[in-house]
Amino acid sequence: MESIHQYEVFEVTMPKQQRSGYPGGVFSCGDHSVCIKGFAENANEGTLRFMPDRQGDWHYAVAWEGESVEGDFHCIAPKRGVHGPVRTQGHHFYYDDGARFIPMGTTCYAWVHQPPEMIEETLETLKSSPFNKVRMCVFPKSMPYNHNDPAFYPFEKKEDGVWDVTRPDQRYWQHLDFCICALAEMGLEADIILFHPYDRWGLSTMKQEDNLTYLHYAIRRLGAYHNVWWALSNEYEFSFGKTIADWDQFGEMLAAEDPYHHLVSAHDWITPYPKRPWMTHVSLQCADPGEVFSVRDEYGLPTIDDEFGYEGDLEFSWGNLSGFEFMNRAWAMVAFGCYISHGETFHRDDEVLWWAKGGKLYGQTPARLQFLAEVLRSLPGPIEPACAQAVRDPNGNASSEGQKQLIKMIWEMESDKGRRQIQKEMTRPIGQHPDFRLIYLERQVRSFISLKLPEQGQYKVEIIDIWGMTRKQAVSGVHGDITVGLPGHEGLAVLITRLSGEALC
Amino acid sequence: MESIHQYEVFEVTMPKQQRSGYPGGVFSCGDHSVCIKGFAENANEGTLRFMPDRQGDWHYAVAWEGESVEGDFHCIAPKRGVHGPVRTQGHHFYYDDGARFIPMGTTCYAWVHQPPEMIEETLETLKSSPFNKVRMCVFPKSMPYNHNDPAFYPFEKKEDGVWDVTRPDQRYWQHLDFCICALAEMGLEADIILFHPYDRWGLSTMKQEDNLTYLHYAIRRLGAYHNVWWALSNEYEFSFGKTIADWDQFGEMLAAEDPYHHLVSAHDWITPYPKRPWMTHVSLQCADPGEVFSVRDEYGLPTIDDEFGYEGDLEFSWGNLSGFEFMNRAWAMVAFGCYISHGETFHRDDEVLWWAKGGKLYGQTPARLQFLAEVLRSLPGPIEPACAQAVRDPNGNASSEGQKQLIKMIWEMESDKGRRQIQKEMTRPIGQHPDFRLIYLERQVRSFISLKLPEQGQYKVEIIDIWGMTRKQAVSGVHGDITVGLPGHEGLAVLITRLSGEALC
Repeated sequence: MESIHQYEVFEVTMPKQQRSGYPGGVFSCGDHSVCIKGFAENANEGTLRFMPDRQGDWHYAVAWEGESVEGDFHCIAPKRGVHGPVRTQGHHFYYDDGARFIPMGTTCYAWVHQPPEMIEETLETLKSSPFNKVRMCVFPKSMPYNHNDPAFYPFEKKEDGVWDVTRPDQRYWQHLDFCICALAEMGLEADIILFHPYDRWGLSTMKQEDNLTYLHYAIRRLGAYHNVWWALSNEYEFSFGKTIADWDQFGEMLAAEDPYHHLVSAHDWITPYPKRPWMTHVSLQCADPGEVFSVRDEYGLPTIDDEFGYEGDLEFSWGNLSGFEFMNRAWAMVAFGCYISHGETFHRDDEVLWWAKGGKLYGQTPARLQFLAEVLRSLPGPIEPACAQAVRDPNGNASSEGQKQLIKMIWEMESDKGRRQIQKEMTRPIGQHPDFRLIYLERQVRSFISLKLPEQGQYKVEIIDIWGMTRKQAVSGVHGDITVGLPGHEGLAVLITRLSGEALC
Repeated sequence: MESIHQYEVFEVTMPKQQRSGYPGGVFSCGDHSVCIKGFAENANEGTLRFMPDRQGDWHYAVAWEGESVEGDFHCIAPKRGVHGPVRTQGHHFYYDDGARFIPMGTTCYAWVHQPPEMIEETLETLKSSPFNKVRMCVFPKSMPYNHNDPAFYPFEKKEDGVWDVTRPDQRYWQHLDFCICALAEMGLEADIILFHPYDRWGLSTMKQEDNLTYLHYAIRRLGAYHNVWWALSNEYEFSFGKTIADWDQFGEMLAAEDPYHHLVSAHDWITPYPKRPWMTHVSLQCADPGEVFSVRDEYGLPTIDDEFGYEGDLEFSWGNLSGFEFMNRAWAMVAFGCYISHGETFHRDDEVLWWAKGGKLYGQTPARLQFLAEVLRSLPGPIEPACAQAVRDPNGNASSEGQKQLIKMIWEMESDKGRRQIQKEMTRPIGQHPDFRLIYLERQVRSFISLKLPEQGQYKVEIIDIWGMTRKQAVSGVHGDITVGLPGHEGLAVLITRLSGEALC
C-alpha cells in the first residue's frame, strides 16, 4: 500500500475521454470521511487532489460520469517541518497540529508571472529571509513598475478574444502549482490573492459567473496544498465592477467548497471589509497601528496589517517608508497583538521591485524582522493588547486618581482633539500575557522608565533596541515600583518577564 | 534737550508723597499724541514710561493728583538693530518699522525665577542661539523639575498671608525689567505669559478683581518695552478657576489699556482659544502640523505653534521628541506658513532643564533651527500654504483627471478614514510665493521627485537636507515637467526658485 505524509497531496487521475465537469470522491479514515471535488486537468485526464489531515489507513472512491476508481493508502507522520494548514484561535494563528504560527509575511504580488530566472532568484531570496508567508496574485498585475506581460495567463481565450474560464491554461496552473509547492518546501504559506483590480487584460472585469467558475476551479485545484491561504481581494473597493454581494459570494463559495477550510480574508484599500462568518481573520491596509488595534478589537479576529506602507523610495507615499519607520510600525502592531506583512519598493530602472516581482531584497528591514520574529518566538505565548480594556473605559487605564480626574475633565470638554488625544494616550502599544509584558515606546526618546511591578515575586526587565537588534537585561529579580534607565533614542521596547510571583495580567 | 532713541523707554518720575493711584500723561509729537498711564514704583515715587514710535520733538505733560510736570525730548533714529514692536499683517509678522520678523522662539518658562548665575548663563546661551523670542512666565512655576522657590514674588503679602496685588514687590519687578531689557539688548522678544496654572503659591487662584489689578500694573509697567508680547495664558483650559469670560476680560483690558498695542495671544492646552478681536495671532499647542495649518486657515491670523513637543528624553510624551522629529514638525509647520517655538527637556538630576529654567542647551535642534532661520531669511517673502485652496475643495488640488475621479470616489464612500486620508494627501506641507515654492517631504524617503514647472521661463531647484543642514542646487534654468534626483532619506525639502517667467503661484 502506498504511503504518503500527513498534509501532503494524494492525487487520483482518471482519463477524461468525453466527460464534462470533474471527478468527485470520498476519502475515509476510520469513521472520518471527506468529500473531494477534482478538476479536468487537460483534454486527456481529470485529477482529484486530497490532503489527509490525520495519520492512518485511508480508503477512497472516486467517480466521474458513471466510471469509478477505488483505492487505499497509508498516511504517515508529516515531513519534518510540516504542520498542516494554519488555523486561528482567538486573535492568533496555529498550525493544524497545534504548533504556533507567527505570521511574518512579505508581499510579491506578481512573482509567479516573472521569467524563470527571476522566480529562481525570488525563491533563493525567500530561503534565507525571515518570511513565512507570501502575498501573491493569481492574475498578473498592471501598475507602475509592472509593465511586462506574463508568459502564460490563467485561461485560454475564446475566438472573440474573451477569456474562456472553462479552459484553464494548464501551463499557467502547473506553473502556479510549482510555485506554491516551492513555497511549501521552504515552510512558507502562500497567501493567494484571488482577485485584484490592477489589470490591463480584462481579468478584473469578468462576469461574476465567470469569476465563480474560476474560483471553484482554484479551490479544487489548489485547496489540497496545506500552505494555501485564500485572500479574496487586494483592495476590494478598487474593483469597481464588484459589489459587496459579489465578494460575499466568493467568501461563501470558499466556506462551502473548500473541504480543508483554509484561512479566508478580504484585503481592503480604505474601509475594512465588513465582518462575515466566512472570514477567518482580518487582512488590513492601514498606516496607523492604533487603528489596526481598533479593528482587531471590534472584529474579535486575528488581524494582519498586510499593508502599512513599504520600505522604499518611490514617489508614492505608500512606497517610501524609511526602514526605521517600517519597523516602528511593525513593533507597534505586534505589541497591539496584531501581525504584519513586509514589502519593499526601492526604485530601480529595470523595474524589478520586490513588492511586485521578487528578485533580491535591498532594504534594512528583513534583518530586523528576523530579530522581531526571534523575540516573538522566544515569548511563552501570544500577545494580548493591554489597552483593550482602557479604550472601552478611558478611566480604566488611569494610573492615579489625578490622572483619572484629568481624563474625565478632558472627556467632558467634548473636544474632538482632546478625546483623540486621550484615546491615543490610552491606546499605547503594550502587549501582555501572564508571564510577560512588552512595552513598545515607539518614537519616544526616553532616558528612563518607571515601572509598577507586582509588590511580591521576581521579575526581569530587558531593554530591546528594535533597530540595533539588541536585547539586554537591565535588572532581574526585582518587584514593586522601579525605575530603569533607557538609552535615550527612538525604537525601544521594554520586556518584563515573570520569574516568580503574581501574573502580569 | 534730552535725546532718546526711537522705541526706547523715556521715563518721567514724580515724588509719591501721599498720592494714591498712579500718574498719567500725554506725549505729543506734532499732531500725534498718546495718553500714558504710569505706576507707583515704591513708597517714594511714581513712574511713567513712554516709548516713542516716531522720530522728532516730543512734548509731555504728566499729572498726578493736581501736581504736574512738563517737558520735552528729542527722539532720534532707533539704535542699530531695534525695529520697534512686532505687528502682524495677514498671516505674518513685521516690526513696527516694516522689517520682517520671522519668529524663532524658545521656551524658558521660569528663567527669571532662577538664581542670578543661572540667569547669566541663560542670557549667554541665548546670545549665541538662533532664537529671537522667549516664552516666559511672570509668575513662578510649580511642576516636575520645578521645585525651587524664587527669591522674590510679584507681590507683597497681606498679614493673613494672602497676596496683596496693590503692593507689587519692587525687587521682583525691577528684576523682571532687567530680564526684559536684557532680551531687548540681544534683539529678543519677550513673550510674557501673564497667567499659568502650574502653581503652589496661590498666584493662579487669585480673585478676578486681583487678576485685573495685577494685569493693569503689568501693562503700565512693562508696556513701554518694545520687545513685549502679551501671552494671556499657558494652557488656558488648565486654569480651572478662570472662565472664558475672565480670559476675555484680560484680552479686552489689554486692547483698551496698552497704548502700544503689543501682540496678544492666548495659548491653549487642547482646544485653540476662540477667535477674539483682541487676539493678534494664534499661539497653539499641537503636535500635528496639518491641524495647525487648519487653525491658521480658520482664524485667518498668524499662527505660532508654541508647543508641539520638546526635544528631550523625559517620561512625558510632550518632552521626549528626538531632535529629528522636532525638526520634522518644525519644517512642516513652516511650509504650511506657520511659525514655531523651540523647547528642550533632557532629564538632569539637578533639574535644570532649559524649557523651565534656562541654563545651557544640549540638544541637536538649535543648530538646525538656525539653519531653518537662514533658509527662511534667504527667501524673498513669507510663505503661504499651497494646500489652503485644496482643503476647501479636495478636487482643486488634483493633478490629473484620474486623481480627481479617485478623490471624488473616496469622498463618496463616506468613510471617515477615507476622508481623513484624502485630507492628509491634500494637506501637504508645501509653501508658495510668486517667486518660490518650498516642498517639504516630511518622512518620505524619495530617490526622485517629479515637478511640474511652468512651460516657459527659467527656474532653479535646490535640495535641502533639514538634518544634514545642506542646501544644494540640483538644476537651474529649467522649466516644464522635470524629474530631480533626491538622496533617498527622511527630512528633505525641495526649493524651487523663479529666475524668470511665470510666477509660481
